[in-house]
Order: sequence, then structure tokens, then C-alpha cells
Amino acid sequence: MLERTPLALTGLLSGLPDGWLQCNEGEGTWNAVQVVDHLIEGEINNWLPRLTHILQEGESSPFPPFDRFAHLQAGSDRTLEEKLLAFSDIRSRNIAKLKQLVDQGLPLEQTGAHPAFGVVKVRELLSTWVAHDLTHLAQIVRVMANRYRDDVGPWIAYLGILNR
Amino acid sequence: MLERTPLALTGLLSGLPDGWLQCNEGEGTWNAVQVVDHLIEGEINNWLPRLTHILQEGESSPFPPFDRFAHLQAGSDRTLEEKLLAFSDIRSRNIAKLKQLVDQGLPLEQTGAHPAFGVVKVRELLSTWVAHDLTHLAQIVRVMANRYRDDVGPWIAYLGILNR
Repeated sequence: MLERTPLALTGLLSGLPDGWLQCNEGEGTWNAVQVVDHLIEGEINNWLPRLTHILQEGESSPFPPFDRFAHLQAGSDRTLEEKLLAFSDIRSRNIAKLKQLVDQGLPLEQTGAHPAFGVVKVRELLSTWVAHDLTHLAQIVRVMANRYRDDVGPWIAYLGILNR
Repeated sequence: MLERTPLALTGLLSGLPDGWLQCNEGEGTWNAVQVVDHLIEGEINNWLPRLTHILQEGESSPFPPFDRFAHLQAGSDRTLEEKLLAFSDIRSRNIAKLKQLVDQGLPLEQTGAHPAFGVVKVRELLSTWVAHDLTHLAQIVRVMANRYRDDVGPWIAYLGILNR
């Protein structure tokens, strides 16, 4: 599943005009490009670093909090296409590292200390990595659908995504 | 946007194991493959046929209701990969036909008669075609995320998709 996300995002977003890429759900909400930025940030600073931290430290020290808004500060001149490539690339490398760890007998029940939740397990971190991809993919799709909220006219009644 | 959906679905689903493809949200709900079936059905019997009907009949006769469950009856031996190809193929052909209509000056404000809603416009039908793709893409992503509901442990608190 982790391998699919960059392909799904590239399939969904590559080549779309700015109207689709820049729309959001109002002030303080993210557009599709900002979600891709956030996913790249997670590949760099969240998932594998936290996994490594758990494996090295166990519960003895909590892993540092992940700044879920860091990507909004980092101004970036990269185009969406460059960002999609960057995400694909770092994700592939991270999966390769994860597979190495699995081959070495990754202890799925090993526990670590989350700064807010307390005790968490390696397998929960890995499942969350996947579900986090899916939650942000759903976010992008929802934000984009919302752009057509008025345009669909009476059909809004049949469109679950516009009725949550 | 209509061009992106087959690519997004192929990116997301192609090659996934059955555990991901067969999971649903309980009895009477659809798995990812059934959603693809429904999208193919829509390309055959819903969007362009309705557009043609509006252009030919205006409001004088309502278009026939679309059976939203037709695809569940039609047993199909095709693999997911074959279905994804079939969807890509028929979608491409339908977009080509739509572009022809646009080139001929498609009347976006032309009205037709929806069997349940009454008066609808060509532009509302076209917007709904897009939003319908997005609602079903979101459905697939939500169904798949739900598979890891328990597995993510305490992180469920941060995963919007599991908290609706």
C-alpha cells in the first residue's frame, strides 16, 4: 500500500490546472500541493526516524514531536511535478529501508513512547504510516470535490462526499 | 479531471493483494473492485447517454433512471487489472466524444428532466460526472483505511478518515 500512494497521487494530480491544485476548504486549510508537501515532510522527519527511534530507545525516551505544519513554513519553488517525483523517490528509498529492517526481523511488538499517547508499538506505527497516506488522499479528493459543490446543482443529494 | 480518474485508480489499486481489494464496510457495502464496476457501468449507461438524451429531448421527457446497483448483478470474470483497463478505455472514448460535442458548441445551459430532481442543466450533469468520480475515489480510500481501524492503535485520534 505504501508503494501505491505516490502512483495514486501522480495519477490524480499530475498535469491538472491550478484551479484544481490551488483550491482549498477555506482559510487555514490545505490545497492538494500542500498535502504533497506534508507527505514529503513525513517521509523525511516522521515515519522512519520514529521507527528507528523506537528500535534504538524503546520506551526509555519519547520520540520528538513531528511538526505537522512544518511544510507550510518551508517556502518551495518546486513545481507540483517535481514534488510528486520527490515524494516517489523518498518513499521508494524508505520502503527499501523498511524491507531491510523486515528482513532483519523487525520486532513488530516492540514498544516506544509517543510524546502525547504514551506507549505505542512498532506495528501501530507502520499501520499508521499507511492510514495516514489514505487520510490525506481522502483529504485531497474531498477538497477537490468541494470545488464543485454548487456546480452539481440538485445532484448534491447523491454525492456523499459533499454531504459530510 | 475526468482524464485523471482512471490513472488515479490504477495508481492506487493495481497490484494490491486481495486483502485490500476485497475489504468493505460491512454487509451491503462495496469493496474497491465493485466501485470500479460501478464506474464502468456509469460510463456505459449513465453520463454520455444522459447528456445525449438532454440534447435530443430537452425537458420533454425525463431520462431513464440509472440503476446504481446494476453492476452488482452482472457477474464478471474479469480481473481487477482488466477492469481498470476497461474503465480507462471507455472513459477515454467518452472524453473524446465529449470533446467533439464541446467543439460543436455544447449548450451548457440547456435543460433536461431528471426523473427524481426535475429540471437539471447540461453543466450540472458534467460537473456531477466529475464529482461522482471523486466521491467514489474517496469511498475506496475510506473503505481501505477502515481496514486498519484497530491496527493504528492510539493514532486513530489523528486520523480524520477514521473519525467520521
